[in-house]
Amino acid sequence: MKSFTTQIRVRFGHVDPAGIAYYPRIFEYIHVVTEELWEQHVGVRYDHLIQERRLGFPLVSSNVDFRRPLRFGDRPIVRVTCFHLGRSSLGLRFVFEQEGETALEARMTTVCTDIEKLQSQPIPQAWRSKLEELLEPPSPTRAGAAIAR
Amino acid sequence: MKSFTTQIRVRFGHVDPAGIAYYPRIFEYIHVVTEELWEQHVGVRYDHLIQERRLGFPLVSSNVDFRRPLRFGDRPIVRVTCFHLGRSSLGLRFVFEQEGETALEARMTTVCTDIEKLQSQPIPQAWRSKLEELLEPPSPTRAGAAIAR
Amino acid sequence: MKSFTTQIRVRFGHVDPAGIAYYPRIFEYIHVVTEELWEQHVGVRYDHLIQERRLGFPLVSSNVDFRRPLRFGDRPIVRVTCFHLGRSSLGLRFVFEQEGETALEARMTTVCTDIEKLQSQPIPQAWRSKLEELLEPPSPTRAGAAIAR
Amino acid sequence: MKSFTTQIRVRFGHVDPAGIAYYPRIFEYIHVVTEELWEQHVGVRYDHLIQERRLGFPLVSSNVDFRRPLRFGDRPIVRVTCFHLGRSSLGLRFVFEQEGETALEARMTTVCTDIEKLQSQPIPQAWRSKLEELLEPPSPTRAGAAIAR
Repeated sequence: MKSFTTQIRVRFGHVDPAGIAYYPRIFEYIHVVTEELWEQHVGVRYDHLIQERRLGFPLVSSNVDFRRPLRFGDRPIVRVTCFHLGRSSLGLRFVFEQEGETALEARMTTVCTDIEKLQSQPIPQAWRSKLEELLEPPSPTRAGAAIAR
Repeated sequence: MKSFTTQIRVRFGHVDPAGIAYYPRIFEYIHVVTEELWEQHVGVRYDHLIQERRLGFPLVSSNVDFRRPLRFGDRPIVRVTCFHLGRSSLGLRFVFEQEGETALEARMTTVCTDIEKLQSQPIPQAWRSKLEELLEPPSPTRAGAAIAR
Repeated sequence: MKSFTTQIRVRFGHVDPAGIAYYPRIFEYIHVVTEELWEQHVGVRYDHLIQERRLGFPLVSSNVDFRRPLRFGDRPIVRVTCFHLGRSSLGLRFVFEQEGETALEARMTTVCTDIEKLQSQPIPQAWRSKLEELLEPPSPTRAGAAIAR
Repeated sequence: MKSFTTQIRVRFGHVDPAGIAYYPRIFEYIHVVTEELWEQHVGVRYDHLIQERRLGFPLVSSNVDFRRPLRFGDRPIVRVTCFHLGRSSLGLRFVFEQEGETALEARMTTVCTDIEKLQSQPIPQAWRSKLEELLEPPSPTRAGAAIAR
């Protein structure tokens, strides 16, 4: 299975007084990784997607399991795969790995939306082809996990 | 069922170019509401909890359904109940309502943790009593929903 | 001299690993205090100002002296006065006090701007009258300080 | 004059409803650029500086002139030079350029501080040598501007 991979830095201002990454920052990392995926993998800059194509991918649901905390100075690798690709809906799985261990796993479901009319739109075919490359194999366990959520 | 209720403001810097609240900000709202719950309902300031008691409640899992977007100027009411109260684990449900409609529902599961040793701790009894007041009735549907996640 | 006064909370996610408020958060506090000033003192909600009146006050210059750090749990009082009120330019001074001492002083100069045309606009008279109430007396030292910047 | 140069991206969550970068985000960019300068130019990771050396550089004063707004999708070049290098104080100038024009110029003065004792410390010699490479020539105008602040 192909995945999109990038790296994140847990910076000075991201860490809370308990010494670990403040969780709203983790959701910001997920957005940044998504922007990188659009530009580097799909081939469209996220600002063009919003400003030229007037399409957005607002979040419909978010399910995150936090396994071990991220700390100041950590530089986790983030691996993105696609667990669901509907006509207009897109489910991306983000696995953050630090020192070979999974720090967290997030499943983010979004819907391709015309941001003027606020109506769902089919995902344009050129983008869909690129997203299909990231599709997870239909494993019974994984699919089950996705459906349960 | 008793709930803790407070209000949030969707401010200038919280809104993205698509005109809706940027989702990492929504997780920041959830943290702010949690801090208010500790101070106003449980009766302990969150900074005392961390700095004096050396206890924290790091996030174990987060499940959020986004039903309608929050916009600049919105001032949603947030209602907090407790869907799970274990020996050291605490599951809080946050329902954001804007103009009488649910904008989003979040279930956040945390574990009471000694932030020096990073070991789970039983939730102190005085706090537990206050959290019990927010416990949801054991409805089959709701409980099922909580367990599935 | 009259001032607008409000209070800020240094929250969990605002503090860096050195234990003090991360300075980008302090600029966010200044924006939040400004939004409160517009609503509570001038009498116009900041979201209405932007969305209905299509006016904004983008920042032209910012000068801040940090005297003592703000820490997690601090709840500084912020006092706002007006050190400059031009035809379209507005200079606000923000003094943050914690335990009777000045933690920081910020002078923020903005320009009333039509956000469609991106052209400066005279500050509407009704707002100007309210801002005049916050004008600092023309002290030679203070004025000098303001001009030097 | 040598400078340290890096690039910043104005991302989705950084832009306000008026369509321009929300100014607290600009201060976050300045912190990120500073972290890059420490690692890439001085040769010490910022997390090591804080966590191993127990030194920090809290902000003493900040003076920023905003010349033209940064917009969603902009990728300004940031050039850093040193306008002041004292025994323990360090003044860095950050010039953000977008499409060949200066978007903003920030002068940030910090003090090398022992973060346990909260006492100023001489900047270690190895770091000072690297910072000296970024020193601006003693132009009368520039020096004057720095002193006036």
